[in-house]
Amino acid sequence: MPIITLLTDFGTADSYVAEMKGAILSRAPGATLVDISHRVSAGDVRAAQYLLSRTWAQFPRGSVHLAVVDPGVGTKRRALAAESAGHHFLAPDNGLLSFLAPDARFVSLPVPASAAPTFHGRDLFAPAAAALVLGEPIDSLGDSVSHPVRAPLPVHRIEKGIVIGEVIHVDQFGSLVSNIPPSSVGAGSRVRAAGTDVGPIRRTFADVSLGALVAVVGSGATIEIAVRDGSAAAKLGVGVGAEIRIEQGRR
Amino acid sequence: MPIITLLTDFGTADSYVAEMKGAILSRAPGATLVDISHRVSAGDVRAAQYLLSRTWAQFPRGSVHLAVVDPGVGTKRRALAAESAGHHFLAPDNGLLSFLAPDARFVSLPVPASAAPTFHGRDLFAPAAAALVLGEPIDSLGDSVSHPVRAPLPVHRIEKGIVIGEVIHVDQFGSLVSNIPPSSVGAGSRVRAAGTDVGPIRRTFADVSLGALVAVVGSGATIEIAVRDGSAAAKLGVGVGAEIRIEQGRR
Amino acid sequence: MPIITLLTDFGTADSYVAEMKGAILSRAPGATLVDISHRVSAGDVRAAQYLLSRTWAQFPRGSVHLAVVDPGVGTKRRALAAESAGHHFLAPDNGLLSFLAPDARFVSLPVPASAAPTFHGRDLFAPAAAALVLGEPIDSLGDSVSHPVRAPLPVHRIEKGIVIGEVIHVDQFGSLVSNIPPSSVGAGSRVRAAGTDVGPIRRTFADVSLGALVAVVGSGATIEIAVRDGSAAAKLGVGVGAEIRIEQGRR
Repeated sequence: MPIITLLTDFGTADSYVAEMKGAILSRAPGATLVDISHRVSAGDVRAAQYLLSRTWAQFPRGSVHLAVVDPGVGTKRRALAAESAGHHFLAPDNGLLSFLAPDARFVSLPVPASAAPTFHGRDLFAPAAAALVLGEPIDSLGDSVSHPVRAPLPVHRIEKGIVIGEVIHVDQFGSLVSNIPPSSVGAGSRVRAAGTDVGPIRRTFADVSLGALVAVVGSGATIEIAVRDGSAAAKLGVGVGAEIRIEQGRR
Repeated sequence: MPIITLLTDFGTADSYVAEMKGAILSRAPGATLVDISHRVSAGDVRAAQYLLSRTWAQFPRGSVHLAVVDPGVGTKRRALAAESAGHHFLAPDNGLLSFLAPDARFVSLPVPASAAPTFHGRDLFAPAAAALVLGEPIDSLGDSVSHPVRAPLPVHRIEKGIVIGEVIHVDQFGSLVSNIPPSSVGAGSRVRAAGTDVGPIRRTFADVSLGALVAVVGSGATIEIAVRDGSAAAKLGVGVGAEIRIEQGRR
Repeated sequence: MPIITLLTDFGTADSYVAEMKGAILSRAPGATLVDISHRVSAGDVRAAQYLLSRTWAQFPRGSVHLAVVDPGVGTKRRALAAESAGHHFLAPDNGLLSFLAPDARFVSLPVPASAAPTFHGRDLFAPAAAALVLGEPIDSLGDSVSHPVRAPLPVHRIEKGIVIGEVIHVDQFGSLVSNIPPSSVGAGSRVRAAGTDVGPIRRTFADVSLGALVAVVGSGATIEIAVRDGSAAAKLGVGVGAEIRIEQGRR
């Protein structure tokens, strides 16, 4: 039976994630559950969007991706199911799914009368995930939505030949993940992060000495600033939103 | 094959949880394992009881719930298997299972000669969980126990029309979960938490402004005190055991 | 289908572990995935070796153990697959697998052209794990390696009848796990940890009073120093590498 991935800001100390899993497995006993992360900062919809946007395509077609970072739980914000590229997605209508392609289809899930107003993850989204892996078509789950909330992650721009982006994620190693794809950068370019020269783009961390800053093409297919065996975030004292500039080399 | 849930205070940095899972899967390869939490504070039997009491019923009948918070590991405290409402439970006889209904049946598990005296989770409880999901009847696992340790969570009381309860759990968002069921509270009531007026009971967090205190009927079906997009525990400086008072409104 | 265990230093806040799992499940949909830990300190190959060495044998024959603590990712360090005692292992060639028996067989995995130089866990090791659980023989995955990097954990020694070992792991409870097997210690011995007398070897924590130091035979089958309901690491102010001495009793 298909995979359901789970991404929340519920943390791992409480029983909330397990309650969602129980609600799923009670309805779809054979589902394969995979945690993406439950340690998104409370209410950080943008961070959830970033994590899901880089992860979903690693899973096979037919997977259902359930993402609940939901500061508006219990309000009139809609609850969405979406279909795109052969995958299904479930999330509050707060911009979390803004990374989906323009041809994604969306429906609005009705709120079950019995749902706890503060826990739609368990009482609304989990049953919908179970229905999808059991083969229910998305259209049977709710009415079509033509204009979901769109709040895409910032994109890089080019000014006078300089590529200007920003840090969109800081990972647990302290690496600064930018929104600059390598395709926008020429050979011989130099990277500046928050005003500090990081040098050219290297292949991997070990291309510099221990403790030194290094720019690489990261595993999410954008330029990252790291410190070999250390934290770039700590060394530079910056985080999400910090400016990354790449000056093109001469060719 | 049935589900086995796991709840411990072992944390997630060590290999202890995985060793339990290996011991289970070596005996019952098809079992579906679901973590409830491994971040119960070391030895906090009451917290484990709270988490399990609100989670087990989300899982289908036939599930086995393995809970190891066990400061007395290796002593003569008994190791229990229990059956209640079509579910099985495994835990030390230290009060962790006090939430079970009065008609629950208990047996005492013998300690295998080879069990490490400091790791009954792996060497005693995990094999018992595997036996239960493989269909062994509980009575084959040990002798009947008529008086397990009972240490139920505190319950609310009513004095002169005022409902008086306490905080029984602080979740990762800093919300204060009380032991007061909404059925004991009339319309128009006002909630006081640790002496501070929290106002009436609202539907959801967003019914107050950002950073404000709010009382709601929580997802565990008791009154909770939260801060919208913040931490009530931090704002009020209180935790488990803090008094919650609800003055009934006039009707 | 067989089990794949996962052990990394990727943490649980990012999507890296889930990306590995997606890469596995896309190729081997029926694999059973079990996390050992993702909270190894960044780059701590020795800690990973300790955790895997005590955990793998809890799992059934045919299991695949994928361990990625890889400060040299993207360099010319080899990527290994190994077979030993009916289990398979995947890890960088940095000593992580030094605990394997001398008759273990090793092959070197080629780096796929498409692999991100900073994420071999997802792009090299995960596909290899999928291939192994699908039944591919290890020899089909790469060329034989006769001299993998060996960096075994330190072993105890005996000087003038005194057993001298060291702390090789501090667990989440603050217990100090030594490298001294109980077989090397006679009855009536006394344990000293970092110069402090811990007394004789007891059966379990509760054999001393609350807050007292206690030496026991731990669940990993070596001598451990703990504090009943407390942290020995905090009480003694020591960690990995601290000396443990055991003076033999007279018989």
